[in-house]
Amino acid sequence: MSQEEKKEKQLSEVKKSKPLDPKAATTCESTIQMLRRAAADGAETAFNRAAEMKPCPIGAESSCCKHCFMGPCRLNPRDPYSRVGVCGATIDTIAARNFSRMVASGGAAHTDHGMGMLDVFREVVRGNIKGYKIKNEKKLFEVAKSIDIKVDGRSVKDVATDLYTELERTYTQVEGEIPFMKRVPPKTLELWRKAGIVPRGAMREIMEIMHRSHMGVDQDYENIVKQCSRTALADGWGGSMVATELGDIMFGSPEPKKAGVNMGFLKEDQVNIIVHGHEPLLFEAMIVASSDPENLKKAEAAGAKGINLLGMCCSGAEVLGRHGVPHAGNFLSTEPVLATGAVDAMAVDVQCIMTGLNTMSKCYGTRFFTTNRKAMIEGAEHVEFDEHDTEKCTNQIIDMAIERFRNRPVQVEIPQRQDWGIHGFSMEYISYMLGGTFRSSYVPLNDNIINGRIRGVAGVVGCTNPRVKQDYIHVELVKELIKNNVLVVQTGCSQIALAKAGLMKPDAAVLAGDGLQEVCETVGMPPVISLGSCVDNSRILTACAEMVRTGGLGDKLSDLPVAGCAPEYMSEKAICIGQYFVASGVYTVFGVTFPSVEGTKFHKLLFEGLEEQGFGKWGFATDPYDIAHLMIEHIDKKRAALGIKGERERKLFSMEDRRAAEG
Amino acid sequence: MSQEEKKEKQLSEVKKSKPLDPKAATTCESTIQMLRRAAADGAETAFNRAAEMKPCPIGAESSCCKHCFMGPCRLNPRDPYSRVGVCGATIDTIAARNFSRMVASGGAAHTDHGMGMLDVFREVVRGNIKGYKIKNEKKLFEVAKSIDIKVDGRSVKDVATDLYTELERTYTQVEGEIPFMKRVPPKTLELWRKAGIVPRGAMREIMEIMHRSHMGVDQDYENIVKQCSRTALADGWGGSMVATELGDIMFGSPEPKKAGVNMGFLKEDQVNIIVHGHEPLLFEAMIVASSDPENLKKAEAAGAKGINLLGMCCSGAEVLGRHGVPHAGNFLSTEPVLATGAVDAMAVDVQCIMTGLNTMSKCYGTRFFTTNRKAMIEGAEHVEFDEHDTEKCTNQIIDMAIERFRNRPVQVEIPQRQDWGIHGFSMEYISYMLGGTFRSSYVPLNDNIINGRIRGVAGVVGCTNPRVKQDYIHVELVKELIKNNVLVVQTGCSQIALAKAGLMKPDAAVLAGDGLQEVCETVGMPPVISLGSCVDNSRILTACAEMVRTGGLGDKLSDLPVAGCAPEYMSEKAICIGQYFVASGVYTVFGVTFPSVEGTKFHKLLFEGLEEQGFGKWGFATDPYDIAHLMIEHIDKKRAALGIKGERERKLFSMEDRRAAEG
Repeated sequence: MSQEEKKEKQLSEVKKSKPLDPKAATTCESTIQMLRRAAADGAETAFNRAAEMKPCPIGAESSCCKHCFMGPCRLNPRDPYSRVGVCGATIDTIAARNFSRMVASGGAAHTDHGMGMLDVFREVVRGNIKGYKIKNEKKLFEVAKSIDIKVDGRSVKDVATDLYTELERTYTQVEGEIPFMKRVPPKTLELWRKAGIVPRGAMREIMEIMHRSHMGVDQDYENIVKQCSRTALADGWGGSMVATELGDIMFGSPEPKKAGVNMGFLKEDQVNIIVHGHEPLLFEAMIVASSDPENLKKAEAAGAKGINLLGMCCSGAEVLGRHGVPHAGNFLSTEPVLATGAVDAMAVDVQCIMTGLNTMSKCYGTRFFTTNRKAMIEGAEHVEFDEHDTEKCTNQIIDMAIERFRNRPVQVEIPQRQDWGIHGFSMEYISYMLGGTFRSSYVPLNDNIINGRIRGVAGVVGCTNPRVKQDYIHVELVKELIKNNVLVVQTGCSQIALAKAGLMKPDAAVLAGDGLQEVCETVGMPPVISLGSCVDNSRILTACAEMVRTGGLGDKLSDLPVAGCAPEYMSEKAICIGQYFVASGVYTVFGVTFPSVEGTKFHKLLFEGLEEQGFGKWGFATDPYDIAHLMIEHIDKKRAALGIKGERERKLFSMEDRRAAEG
Repeated sequence: MSQEEKKEKQLSEVKKSKPLDPKAATTCESTIQMLRRAAADGAETAFNRAAEMKPCPIGAESSCCKHCFMGPCRLNPRDPYSRVGVCGATIDTIAARNFSRMVASGGAAHTDHGMGMLDVFREVVRGNIKGYKIKNEKKLFEVAKSIDIKVDGRSVKDVATDLYTELERTYTQVEGEIPFMKRVPPKTLELWRKAGIVPRGAMREIMEIMHRSHMGVDQDYENIVKQCSRTALADGWGGSMVATELGDIMFGSPEPKKAGVNMGFLKEDQVNIIVHGHEPLLFEAMIVASSDPENLKKAEAAGAKGINLLGMCCSGAEVLGRHGVPHAGNFLSTEPVLATGAVDAMAVDVQCIMTGLNTMSKCYGTRFFTTNRKAMIEGAEHVEFDEHDTEKCTNQIIDMAIERFRNRPVQVEIPQRQDWGIHGFSMEYISYMLGGTFRSSYVPLNDNIINGRIRGVAGVVGCTNPRVKQDYIHVELVKELIKNNVLVVQTGCSQIALAKAGLMKPDAAVLAGDGLQEVCETVGMPPVISLGSCVDNSRILTACAEMVRTGGLGDKLSDLPVAGCAPEYMSEKAICIGQYFVASGVYTVFGVTFPSVEGTKFHKLLFEGLEEQGFGKWGFATDPYDIAHLMIEHIDKKRAALGIKGERERKLFSMEDRRAAEG
């Protein structure tokens, strides 16, 4: 066969395969129903496209390199050391460089999100933006205090101005340490300083990765992984944390409330508008606009009983907890929901917006709008959102939605399922919930971990991915964890999967092991705690730091009996999040696939070496029970190291205990 | 065939092919000789590895996407619109996103380089670094003046401090325009402002690309290309330009001098040390150390007649022009030169350093050192270079080199070829050369372009790439251009190819067409002008801006009868450089391969659409004569638009003309 023939043959392998079975693709009933409708209508979703296209076997194991034009080079993942790239790069260099760009992109997404929030915060403080305000002065003062800004006797404006100046360093600083390093347990920070991975500023770290991953620069996988950690920490303890904290300051900290999830919250007789994406700015403005009497009047004039605003994906998870706005479904349901025909408009901002949404919205006549100049879609309508004049964009979207409501071009079919649960926890609320108003504290949590009622804490987070059955792994994994007395905290699309499975209800405590059940019943909380969007993973970091500070569970983040998991992840953000948890000291298990070849030095460094150096480590498994037991095993290992392996005397959690703990 | 079998089959296609024919691989005689020796010794270079590994046919046409874990997705470059990625991304989105990451990495390389220079400059100004100084106060004042810093009556330190503060904005600023925008012709700047592509700060632009190229963010190829332009301009008119200008200020502006290129400058009876990489900081310190009497004494004690320092790749091209340090060869000769056995030490900093150098240096006993913490190679010795204490690193390298000289483990075989030429031009020197000391000016250049003696100016730059015959395309292309009266300016590895071909000698004017020959002979310059390293492509931008300012050739950079080419490029830096030339208004032709599928909308935008919008455009061809005539055709098109298509009255270039031009 000639080279040209071989090339043609390889190209022809990129072709279609079998059709899709919705029940094999997802456990979400509404999504199944809509996939069936879509199939009948000849509309295609990511589920179809994933079934039709096999992932590149070489790329999937991160064994190809496109970083220069002597390539693209492909190594053999079955025999990774049999050859090197044209420049001589080994599988370890190639995989580490690929990984570093994933971290850079994921970190950049959160950095840009956080910078956007900071820009608005600055303009609010300066009085140049009227559409937003400082809603939560208590949180403002707390955040300022946590990074050593003097607050006593000072005005909100002065403290806010100082906070802005200080937090800006998170992004623009080129030397020094980013401000939230002050929240890191001293022993953990010491480890990072020794390793040279304390982030200077997010933009510098991202830029440096992009330099170091250029052809002929860094070719030592260990050195590259260090820069991955540094950049990822600039996300978790920087970009993301700033976004979360400013969100709480400007829009209010989440507090637990009953809220609903699933497509059943679409209303046939109302104008349905879905906001999908990641930044709260558009969503908060849409909340205001959709309850504006003027707009409501227009909707009524068109025959609608109201304007029904719903979230999807991450900004949806954020407002679900913050304001109780119903949530229509996670990432993979964003296309299927359009098949209801009930979505009059979908407005999107940034991240995890599929091009397919534009195509799908055209099938069902949904008005689909991109709103951020950084995230446009070819052929989609763009209505730019300007934080200085939010109404211009939001009113236009509402007008278009009303117009579409008036002339719905397709029959409406709304799945009936509505799942209620308690949403809207935060690091501060957990403290309040456990310790009460005057003694809010993590002592009861730590105590219950020490006494063994709670075995440990697991963060289950991340996307859904059409390469695996939507929601299934999230749900089975979490059930297995709580059954084993592991308290689960959640963010993002994973949280929505569990909400749909009913696990956010306090009643779900019956599914938990005895110890965890007892704690849940005493406190009146569900065994699965929702924390918001994917930038809100920073809440888990803050909570872990507070657990260390509270005492009794070691003096480093890596001492804690905790573990993390993104079992159905699909984005580079997830890789960056995983890396900041690992660098922080957390065992983090990913599912679906992992961008490295098992047995290579790079893989061993991520999966073993980093832990030996005092950090956390990566894990990988695809079966939910396997994942659960990897996490539980790790939690038990940490318990053993802390000397709290066996359960201690079991006691009820009384006011007296709280007072004692307080002492 | 089962999926698993197909996968295995595909993986097994990654296998070895035929052996290498050195004469087919390169036209560099020394490299041929060394490839033969390496083959006899069983040593392998990039030439062998490229021959053994076919580039991935899908990746080479930028038709795969690894930006999320629903993939990697592969489209068919033969039928690119037949399918989309799992998220729905089209070939245009995928190719644009891939392209944007190339620009980000290339831009980051130059940004990091420039920031490093700026850090040193700041420390020099503050008196914290003693190893470097402000050598060229004239240039300091000129650069300061060019960006509106007051200089009259002010001290060097004050001006330098202001210059530092101002130039820092190039990298760290998040809003506004970078300082060197003040050098851009007003009409060009106006176009950029309208298009929204004036760079704010290099780090922000890079970060924004990495966000926008994340899954589910920017999916509009036109919008992505805008951000590519913005980021690339932050390199050309930012990162790179700062590096060049600070290099001139701290180490002296290059001035034409006779200097030598080729492996024949290795000396059997001396300690040979090669510095390879991109930043001048290490090299400048090595120059000092290798002429230090203490070190020379040590070398003599070991039986050596001296310490012979040579450059390779880009930092080599920079010191070749600046100080006349001989240059041993370009990128692809960095491995073969080790086969001489004569290289006692090779010290590298960043970019275009092949992992293979470490393996090769072990074959021939060369002491190989990485020196920058950002660029380590697994298994290579690392001697960290610290700008605050340069001697610690440089003396250690010299000691190791002397030790190796004393016990050379292999027989030495030095190719005899030495090529002399004139190196070390700069934008300022061209002005002086053409106009004389008191009337330094671009008027004579513009006049000779207007009168047709010089048809236009071509920048021929960029790497060498083992996918094509080393040096061959550079040399044939440049010969064809000068034959057609196109004055050629050069940087980087291309410049070294032409130097080896003897084209940097004034005598080479005989190869030029009548008009260009006349100008060269009058002025006493070669028809091919060397400008330095790849960051020094910024000199071409400055020169183009000066041509516009001088008048008679239009009022925008895109009006000039100029064109650029990187016919053997291999790095992502080259893509970024290409994009900043295109965005600036220059027709830029690349060879080897191009990361897009012909006929797609993305490809058409780069190759046609951008020009229609008032920018430059990309071109592609692999044959040197084809490339030359694409460039000449474009130059003629611009001449026609300027109304200077036909040659005007031909006149000699006298002092009288100069005075008239001055008026």
